[in-house]
Amino acid sequence: MKNEELKNRDLVVLWHPCTQMKDHETLPLIPIKKAYGIYLEDFEANTYIDAVSSWWVNIFGHTNSYINKKIKEQLDTLEHVILAGFTHESIIKLSERLVKLTPDGLSKCFYADNGSSAVEVALKMSYHAHKNDDKEKKIFVSLTNSYHGETIGALSVGDVKLYKDTYAPLLIETIQTPVPIDMSIEAAKEAANKFEKLCEKRSNDISAIILEPLVQGAGYMHMYHEEFLILVRDICTKYDIHLIADEVMVGFGRTGELFACQKAGITPDFIVLSKGLTGGYLPLSVVLTTDEIYAKFYCDYSENKAFLHSHSYTGNALACAAANATLDIFERDDVIEKNRITAKYMSEKLQKFKKLKNVDSIRQTGMICVVELKGYKPEERIGLKVYQYGLDNGVLLRPLGHVVYFMPPYVITNKEIDKMMDTAYEAIKKLTNQN
Amino acid sequence: MKNEELKNRDLVVLWHPCTQMKDHETLPLIPIKKAYGIYLEDFEANTYIDAVSSWWVNIFGHTNSYINKKIKEQLDTLEHVILAGFTHESIIKLSERLVKLTPDGLSKCFYADNGSSAVEVALKMSYHAHKNDDKEKKIFVSLTNSYHGETIGALSVGDVKLYKDTYAPLLIETIQTPVPIDMSIEAAKEAANKFEKLCEKRSNDISAIILEPLVQGAGYMHMYHEEFLILVRDICTKYDIHLIADEVMVGFGRTGELFACQKAGITPDFIVLSKGLTGGYLPLSVVLTTDEIYAKFYCDYSENKAFLHSHSYTGNALACAAANATLDIFERDDVIEKNRITAKYMSEKLQKFKKLKNVDSIRQTGMICVVELKGYKPEERIGLKVYQYGLDNGVLLRPLGHVVYFMPPYVITNKEIDKMMDTAYEAIKKLTNQN
Repeated sequence: MKNEELKNRDLVVLWHPCTQMKDHETLPLIPIKKAYGIYLEDFEANTYIDAVSSWWVNIFGHTNSYINKKIKEQLDTLEHVILAGFTHESIIKLSERLVKLTPDGLSKCFYADNGSSAVEVALKMSYHAHKNDDKEKKIFVSLTNSYHGETIGALSVGDVKLYKDTYAPLLIETIQTPVPIDMSIEAAKEAANKFEKLCEKRSNDISAIILEPLVQGAGYMHMYHEEFLILVRDICTKYDIHLIADEVMVGFGRTGELFACQKAGITPDFIVLSKGLTGGYLPLSVVLTTDEIYAKFYCDYSENKAFLHSHSYTGNALACAAANATLDIFERDDVIEKNRITAKYMSEKLQKFKKLKNVDSIRQTGMICVVELKGYKPEERIGLKVYQYGLDNGVLLRPLGHVVYFMPPYVITNKEIDKMMDTAYEAIKKLTNQN
Repeated sequence: MKNEELKNRDLVVLWHPCTQMKDHETLPLIPIKKAYGIYLEDFEANTYIDAVSSWWVNIFGHTNSYINKKIKEQLDTLEHVILAGFTHESIIKLSERLVKLTPDGLSKCFYADNGSSAVEVALKMSYHAHKNDDKEKKIFVSLTNSYHGETIGALSVGDVKLYKDTYAPLLIETIQTPVPIDMSIEAAKEAANKFEKLCEKRSNDISAIILEPLVQGAGYMHMYHEEFLILVRDICTKYDIHLIADEVMVGFGRTGELFACQKAGITPDFIVLSKGLTGGYLPLSVVLTTDEIYAKFYCDYSENKAFLHSHSYTGNALACAAANATLDIFERDDVIEKNRITAKYMSEKLQKFKKLKNVDSIRQTGMICVVELKGYKPEERIGLKVYQYGLDNGVLLRPLGHVVYFMPPYVITNKEIDKMMDTAYEAIKKLTNQN
């Protein structure tokens, strides 16, 4: 079996996510035969460092022997059971651990299958909680440049034009308040002030603000100071507005703490988790909320206040097994501490990008490093050139437009970081030579 | 470990889907230790026949040895890889098979993680396809009494008040056209006429009609004649409206053919699949569409017509392995033919329910049998009493209000059908005695 054969078969029957399929007339589509550690290997034995952790999900490497073992054990006892009226040990254990690990006060776990669906759970739960208090608050606020997923509700609170504009007539009304313009504490204060001004006017209508703490993933990896979270938390409390922390991308150690909210020492009313939750293995997502929210729904059935949301595979046992195995590794290997050392090494390597003349700026939050390019128009699709160079040299880089970033699995070694970042450096430098 | 201990631990940290949690003060919450074939077994060795296939997902039994083997093989080679720019053999194989097995003309597979997300993919793709033809058609039509999922877009095209009414102010504008009132061909014609009248007035605004072919699952298992599908297909073609067939529940053999649309011999513009797709193992969903739709998005990137929807775990390799194993069993065991025999046996058993004085009617489509009760008010929660009696006697029945139904895994034997249906019979009869 060769790459070319599989690629051709693929293009007959598959429509790939987030892709202009015509691009594949020239761009390679790479069939992966096997994966291990940070490497993807195609059918012609070429290997690629997975520098984007396969869309930011993988944290302890592909086909990790420990996670594999735990999923196999689960397969032999219970693969799945309906979660309404029934439960199982893996999900109880996972929920107990998540309650313990997430910010204090988050005490109840509601599950779904992907980030978008979990964002929708949080939005609906927020609206419904107010409603159960006889308050009609139907407006959701999010940050400019935010991304929260692709289903209609999730897309409505997003603000990346590339994904949103086409569907604008289908979306529900939301308000965007400015994200801090940079990582400074001043920018955090200024943005929080603007949010407070909005709340002064509209707090009667606003159900919640949803935000990605510290780093806006698909929003070109824009980063801001944790002070913003502290201030927003206070404003939300003051105006009876829920704070929804979408940690789908930043959760599970990406920012340097296990959860980004912990950098600010705050507890949101809802935290949304997915991606790293199963170590990059299986779709699973969860919304954690407080006893206070839970209590608003807890009453006799006849009061019609129950949260009747469901997905067929909610609480899937195999995904829970993968999640428990992932948390086992966090505990066993002191991952957060190790990541500090890895992040420091990446930080040092990042400095030299500043000297390139087509680099506008660099930034970093924990295990996310960013190199932002300048001097290119969107139609030049400069990111594709970096992507192509990366593939030709054994590294899967996947720039967001003019923003090159590194978000590798945590098990990456210094030598592999060298290869990953040096390849990106050469790719960016090569662009300059071409100009 | 005992049931009681796990139940108590669960209720501290978990919020279950589609559940008024206060019900569990009296209703049992059952922790499942292991599952095999059609049986769920708790921590005190009680077993339950899974008569609802764990929310209509399981088809070849729990911890099926063949599906287990195939998932383990996948685990050892590739657990997951990003599907943008990359692909893998399991998803290519699965897509080729789905294209071959679904109605003629459906040729491209776009993946997501659950039914709701796939419904949202179909809605967005339909709207966007028209838009790429310079048509602004923002209205979706669905049937009265329909259910299509829980995310904002999916909920907006639903019509079950229990799930929808609370969130009405958040939902997008849709139109419901009457579902055929019963299984007769006359009812099918009458409902189709009403849909055509709507199209005459609004075809400029209507993007698509979405429907569950033949059986409306969460809509109390309401059933209708396939003639309706034939007529709706013609009307859609005439008025340039897409037909979206939501076969999340009815697909993969439930109605007697592999896909319900095949009973009517029609090809929808979009078919939405999930649940049985992975045999009840893992969350995975897919939308298949035509070359004609695909072509409307296929152009130079600069034209901004690409479908930029994505979910992190789209095309998950483990879920694809489960799906391929499921299709292997369909091929190997001539399942559709076997199901005809099983369905006939269930049909015979169903007849005796008609004699019970609290039974309004019975109905059946393939592997779905329904007993509809009469004479009870919603607040009596009669379904809960049947549920409780079932559990006490080793059968997981989960009535939808006053509608008791049977939707077991296909591997159920006649003896097990006896146990399942006789238990329901006794439960229903007991209700009468109480009155």
